[in-house]
Formats: sequence, structure tokens, C-alpha cells
Amino acid sequence: MGDRMRIGVFGLGSMGYGVAQSLLRAGHQVWGFDPNRAQVEKFVGEGGKAGSASEVASDLDIAVLVVLNADQTRMVLTGDEGLIGRMPEGAGIISCATVSPDFAREMEAAAEAAGLYYLDAPISGGSVKAAEGRLSVMAAGRPAAFTAVKPALDAMAETIFELGDSAGPGSAMKAVNQLLAGVHIAAMGEAMTFGMTQGVDPAKLVEVISQCAGTSWMFENRAPHVVSGDYTPHSAINIWPKDLGIVMDIARGSKFSAPLTAAALQQFLAAAGSGLGGEDDAAVAKVYARNAGLTLPRGDSE
Amino acid sequence: MGDRMRIGVFGLGSMGYGVAQSLLRAGHQVWGFDPNRAQVEKFVGEGGKAGSASEVASDLDIAVLVVLNADQTRMVLTGDEGLIGRMPEGAGIISCATVSPDFAREMEAAAEAAGLYYLDAPISGGSVKAAEGRLSVMAAGRPAAFTAVKPALDAMAETIFELGDSAGPGSAMKAVNQLLAGVHIAAMGEAMTFGMTQGVDPAKLVEVISQCAGTSWMFENRAPHVVSGDYTPHSAINIWPKDLGIVMDIARGSKFSAPLTAAALQQFLAAAGSGLGGEDDAAVAKVYARNAGLTLPRGDSE
Repeated sequence: MGDRMRIGVFGLGSMGYGVAQSLLRAGHQVWGFDPNRAQVEKFVGEGGKAGSASEVASDLDIAVLVVLNADQTRMVLTGDEGLIGRMPEGAGIISCATVSPDFAREMEAAAEAAGLYYLDAPISGGSVKAAEGRLSVMAAGRPAAFTAVKPALDAMAETIFELGDSAGPGSAMKAVNQLLAGVHIAAMGEAMTFGMTQGVDPAKLVEVISQCAGTSWMFENRAPHVVSGDYTPHSAINIWPKDLGIVMDIARGSKFSAPLTAAALQQFLAAAGSGLGGEDDAAVAKVYARNAGLTLPRGDSE
Repeated sequence: MGDRMRIGVFGLGSMGYGVAQSLLRAGHQVWGFDPNRAQVEKFVGEGGKAGSASEVASDLDIAVLVVLNADQTRMVLTGDEGLIGRMPEGAGIISCATVSPDFAREMEAAAEAAGLYYLDAPISGGSVKAAEGRLSVMAAGRPAAFTAVKPALDAMAETIFELGDSAGPGSAMKAVNQLLAGVHIAAMGEAMTFGMTQGVDPAKLVEVISQCAGTSWMFENRAPHVVSGDYTPHSAINIWPKDLGIVMDIARGSKFSAPLTAAALQQFLAAAGSGLGGEDDAAVAKVYARNAGLTLPRGDSE
């Protein structure tokens, strides 16, 4: 174990809370920040610290931002109580939200102008791996930024992909991953319900396809939710209008035609619009089922 | 090794030739049939037999059809020199082409009316596994049909999925697999080229995504072709207008809306229409690259 660092975690949602726990377990002093007081109090009960961001900022060696999107990232960094201008020179920022490469470059420039190090560091792996300190991080930033945040990065991640020596490629790689993940979840919904309309048992579909060339990580992970009719949200439908929206924004900015991403986004929007936004993203299958007059296992098709 | 059977293989393309070799290796007497005389002569050179289908049919215990589509299947079974009416009562037919479940049921009925057993048995695995006798077979048919064709099935397949006691579910499962496989290949092309427009190195894309939730069997298999710029056809673009066309035909017949399949089909049609039909299906990435003004590795983008 390395030096004991003073680390702030901004955003104690399902991913951020696990990151904060992993940092505590590694022996660091960790402050948790979240508008949801209950999450902060729970974290304090586990040995974490709490306080006002504007007051704590000047004591932090590292800030880890596990917030929802670019707007929240901007607010934490440059808002009224923003970290940039308050954190001490030489401190490091790990920015984990899925954002555009351009936004990551903008935040890096703002951080560097204030003498801070910035790591463009989207994460992948889900809440269980977050709590275990076993995330994958798609990281890009100055070599000095990697050095500045290393103690936190080592505690939260099992795999660190080093993708470039300035911000941007981390967010670009995350966007590529989300493009594929979103398309594959929608394709799972399309394939499972298509098979069911042809009279194939859904459990059999999962068993056979998992062993064939049509399989994907998302198919194997999400299709069993359709078979069991359990849509408890591990990753919610509402993630996808946001993340595929970011992909489509980046694509439009580059004049890149992305017809599969566009089609998948429409299916997630139809799911969110029909009241399924809080359900597990496997519930995109319900949109297909409804359109086909098909009843899914456990009759959860509406 | 079981009894030495008399087996005819109809279609000596990249899959059928391997099937015929596997049957020979298992000790059976094997006749090869194909309009391409060179393939037949090559097979005879390896110990196979040749002849006129209409004359050989009455001697066959089992016929394995590894032809392209429903039209060719129908011709081999019910055409002028058709097997149905010529093969001896109690003989078995293994039908491997990707066809609709309804077509499989129609052929089963025709075979049974002539005292023959019919197995709805689409295959998966590619030409290398075909030659090794290690295919996956998505099989459905009467229990007696499974028994009648077992010696051939065992010699050609490593994995036999038993999906139902009459024809249909085998073809349905194959359609589901092709839906996913086709969508995943197009998604691979979309993701690789999207990442490249954002400045990410294509080899890095393959390395990282293969370890993340966005991966798929097809991504891991096909994306390296884009990185190396090698479009030698292992599985050609031209497969997909056919197979996704079958999926869309079945879907339309069931009033099933399949927007991702439809989008993927359009990309493969654009690939075939622009002269890439004979290239490896990873060349769907060239459609995306052309639309984005992007140059793929080795400058093969146009």
C-alpha cells in the first residue's frame, strides 16, 4: 500500500459509492459528496468523511468525479463551489463520467490553467466491480497526471488502459464501448423476442446462442433477465438515451453516419417514453414484445 | 465408429466440402455432388465418389444438403433429379441451409410423404470447423429422424442442439443467430470507424473493447480484419443480404418489427452494391469509412 492520500469522491451513486468504498479500504482518507444526504451519511457510517466541498477542496490531493454527465462534471469543477481554483496546485482530478472527447479536452485545459492535473478516465464494469475496486478505466492524460492520481487509480481499478498523453482518447474509447454495448442490448431484445415469435423457448435461445457466433457479452449478461422476467435495474434503461445521445452528438459533430446506433437509441427512447426508464435495460425487450403482441416470461410485457 | 453408411453430400462449397471430408474420415462411403466439376474431382481425389444424383439416390442411406438457400434445397429434394421419390424408404435427410421455419416444415412434410426422415439442421461454425467435423448443428425433427441420420451427424458435428421433435425450431434458432451475427458485424464496422474518426488507433480499439462489456464474438473475430486491412473472404459480404433477408422475410410474415436488423441489412446491401460482395464481411466497415471520408488501414477504403 502506498501513501495515505486525501481523496474526495464526487457522486455517491451505484458506481461512485463503490469507488469511495474501495478507496477507504485501500487506507486513504476519503470524503464523500452527494446531493443525497442519506448516501453521504451511510458512507460516514462506514468510516468516510463529509463536509462542504468548497471548504474541503483545499485539503484534497485527489478528486474523483463519478457523476452522471458533462453538466454535472462542469458544475463540480467550475461551478460556484468548483474544485478548480480551490484544490491546491499539483492536485489531481480523475473524471469518470461519459462525456465527449471535446469536453474532456476543455476540462483538461481549465484544470491545467489552475495548476491541476486532469485524467480523462471513463470507467466500465458495473456497480459490483466498483465496490470491489476492480473497475476498468479508459484513461488518457499527461504522464504527470497519471502519476498524481496513481494511488486512487490503483485502489479503484483492476485494469487501466493508457490511451494517450492528453485528454480525449479515454472519452472516445468509452463512447465506442457504449455504442457497441447499447446496440448489443437492443439487438438482444430484438433477437429474443423474434425467436419467441417463432415459437422458440427463451431459455433455449440463451443456452444455444451463448455457444454460437451470434453471442455478445451483453447478450449473455442481459438475456437471462428476459428469461426470468426480472427487470430489477442493474443498469437502467435511462442510461441509454443519455449515453447513445452522447455518441450521436459526437458522431454528428464528425459528420459520421451511425444507423445502428440511431436505431438502438430509438428503441431505448420508446422504452423510456413508455414508462420503463427505471427498469433494467433488458426491458428494451418489452418494446419489441408490445409491438409484436407477444407476452414475455412472467407476463411482464406491459 | 458406427456402421459404414452410404452418404451423399449435396453442395461442395466451403462448408459442404469440409462436411464431406469429415464423413469420409469417419469411414463412410461418401458421394459428392456439386455443379462445379473441379470441386467434385478434387473430392474424388481424396477418396470420395461421384455420380449422377438421380442414379445414386436409390443407394443412399443419408443425404446431407449443404446448399445456399431454400431454392437450391427445393431443387435437390423435389426437382427433376430430386431425392424425394428416389431415396429408399427409411433413409434420412439432413438439411443445413438457412431457410425459414415454414419452408423447413414444408420439406419435412414432403419427405415424410415419401417415407423419408427429415432433419431441420442449420449449421454454424465456419469452414475450418466444417473440415474438422466440429460444427454446431441447430437440429429439430422426429426422434426417428435423429436416429436415422445419427452416423452422419456425429461425424460432422461437435455440438448438436436438439431443439424440437419436428422441423422448424432449428431454422428459427439459426435465424436468431444470423440476426445477431449480422447486426454485430455491422456494429463492429460502425464502432471501429467511429472510433477512428475520434483519433483512436484501430489496434487499440480491438485490444480495449475485447476486454470490455461492448465486446461480441463477431467483434473479436472480424475487427482484426479491419486492423490488418485483410479482406480475404472467410465469410463474404454476399452472405448477409441473403441471411438477413431471410430474417426480415420471417419477421414480416410474423408482423415483427426489427429495426436493427433492417439497418444492418441496408449497410450490407450498400457494401454489395458498391462492389464489395465477394470480400470478407468485415468490409462493411468500408461503407462507413467511405461515408465518413475516412481512410482505413492499408488504404483499402476505396
